[in-house]
Amino acid sequence: MLLALDAMGGDHAPLETCSGAILACEIFPELEVALVGDKRAIEPLLESASAEVRGRVHMIHAEERITMDEPPAVAIRQKRHSSLRIAMQMVRSGEALGCVSAGSTGAIVAGGVLVVGRIPGIDRPGLGVPLPAVNRISMLIDIGATVRCKPVNLYQFALMGDIYMRKIIGIQSPSIGLLSNGQEQVKGDELILEAHELFRKSSLNFIGNVEGGGIPFGAADVVVCEGLTGNILLKFIEGTGEAIYSLVREELNQRFLPKVGMIFMLPMLKDLWARFNYENLGGTPLLGVNGAVIKAHGRSRAKAICGALRVARDFVSRNGVQSIAEELSEGGTRE
Amino acid sequence: MLLALDAMGGDHAPLETCSGAILACEIFPELEVALVGDKRAIEPLLESASAEVRGRVHMIHAEERITMDEPPAVAIRQKRHSSLRIAMQMVRSGEALGCVSAGSTGAIVAGGVLVVGRIPGIDRPGLGVPLPAVNRISMLIDIGATVRCKPVNLYQFALMGDIYMRKIIGIQSPSIGLLSNGQEQVKGDELILEAHELFRKSSLNFIGNVEGGGIPFGAADVVVCEGLTGNILLKFIEGTGEAIYSLVREELNQRFLPKVGMIFMLPMLKDLWARFNYENLGGTPLLGVNGAVIKAHGRSRAKAICGALRVARDFVSRNGVQSIAEELSEGGTRE
Repeated sequence: MLLALDAMGGDHAPLETCSGAILACEIFPELEVALVGDKRAIEPLLESASAEVRGRVHMIHAEERITMDEPPAVAIRQKRHSSLRIAMQMVRSGEALGCVSAGSTGAIVAGGVLVVGRIPGIDRPGLGVPLPAVNRISMLIDIGATVRCKPVNLYQFALMGDIYMRKIIGIQSPSIGLLSNGQEQVKGDELILEAHELFRKSSLNFIGNVEGGGIPFGAADVVVCEGLTGNILLKFIEGTGEAIYSLVREELNQRFLPKVGMIFMLPMLKDLWARFNYENLGGTPLLGVNGAVIKAHGRSRAKAICGALRVARDFVSRNGVQSIAEELSEGGTRE
Repeated sequence: MLLALDAMGGDHAPLETCSGAILACEIFPELEVALVGDKRAIEPLLESASAEVRGRVHMIHAEERITMDEPPAVAIRQKRHSSLRIAMQMVRSGEALGCVSAGSTGAIVAGGVLVVGRIPGIDRPGLGVPLPAVNRISMLIDIGATVRCKPVNLYQFALMGDIYMRKIIGIQSPSIGLLSNGQEQVKGDELILEAHELFRKSSLNFIGNVEGGGIPFGAADVVVCEGLTGNILLKFIEGTGEAIYSLVREELNQRFLPKVGMIFMLPMLKDLWARFNYENLGGTPLLGVNGAVIKAHGRSRAKAICGALRVARDFVSRNGVQSIAEELSEGGTRE
């Protein structure tokens, strides 16, 4: 299975993207990765790979790269030789079965629509992130492919989230929640009220509105919201993790006894951390485009890039795109 | 100083509201509390108070109470003998200098507008919650007095948050941030873009857009957002705290070594918890109404009710309402 990786995307590219590709090829023997980017920068980074792995990592030269501060749609249109655009063209042409990028979210979404193309029946793609909740993985969609959107977009996010959780994650009849400021049906703005009606009349396993406090407890398998809200929430989650980490470290530096206690607690904290570390969760699928497009976190290091490649591999091998396309062409009804 | 307390509001009323009133009177010798509610239910709950404190706790009988599932504005209009409405009328008439309720947020906002009245120049009041961030308290406004709103409402939230942080919390020239999906000025929906312009042209210490990840790090002293977003975020924060607590407890029950470690870490964890426990932060001021109206958390127990009474007391003694009214009448310019 050949996956294209935007070797130049992300804060730590190309060093960590290349290391991530090697790591993924070591773990998954059927995987081949096309590293798209500046050949001169990439080549020396592959020296550490074994000959066998090296044989499965291919270099595709790209003259340009899209940076974080460029207007995304303009950059995708104009930088025809950018690593991201070439990686996406490989998906469009069928050369690669999927692609991964840790670059600009806006550019990935724009490229998904303009280069890879949408699945018929989907107006706007959505970014769905698997969030760790108590005792389950819950998908939050959309976390930034849109800013504001229409009720029908929220409905399509719900449909795609439902299919993803069934086909890729393997959850039977996933529960769908609509993020709002109260559980009662009358809560929310006009968008949420209209979307609520669409959800209620559908064949989705819609459990009604979900409040912010329900998310960490896994109130629903799929939690649907606009990109603006999802983006603020996701970044808040990441920021909170970092803030708690820095506070605990600061406290530990000032005290002696907790350091002793820490020794006893490390295995537990490691397990808890593993459950919540986004590096283990891997990338975020851009649902609704006609190919497996996975966004990795901008700050991804090798392990996270490897995780995103794993997400792409699972999405491809479980026919994620075809499942969404087929179910939508059948009118979005469930099996 | 006489404060009215809605003795029947909240999940644990009237037991915890009455205990909270007693606790507050024990701590603050100048405080008098009017307990508004069902006299038969309240009276026996005051037996534990000392004679001196008992002399500063007054009972005001109210036949009715407003429940959580009633349409707020209708309930405020029709239940003229409800504990919340009577407490608010005492503020309006000047009998009480402020009031506290742990009841329905919607009813408190409706009562603030319909009974207490708005400060001239304020279109819609906002609920501002002080959030603990790394090394500072940051105010998030609005967290639920509105659902969606107009740019001018966000601007008024910013003005009021600025005054609150200066006059009540004592922060010189508070930094004001606008919550968005990116720091760049072009990020956000139309509302945020227009509000950004209003903020930028004002004399506020506006530092630009703030992302979700900036909140836990105290990116701004005042973070402004619509009520829908603020409500989802605040509830998410509370839910996350509860989820982490339950996960750690579950892990501790399954393991032995961490229990040993816990003994060493308890003092540190207690300190950290104290910094983030909303019970210590007390209530949320409804800014923009013509009186000190403080919303306590629905799940408040005695300690949190006492904290909310303290917030009301500080707001009154530091002339919160007058400060907002005066600065607005001067055109919202800062000293």
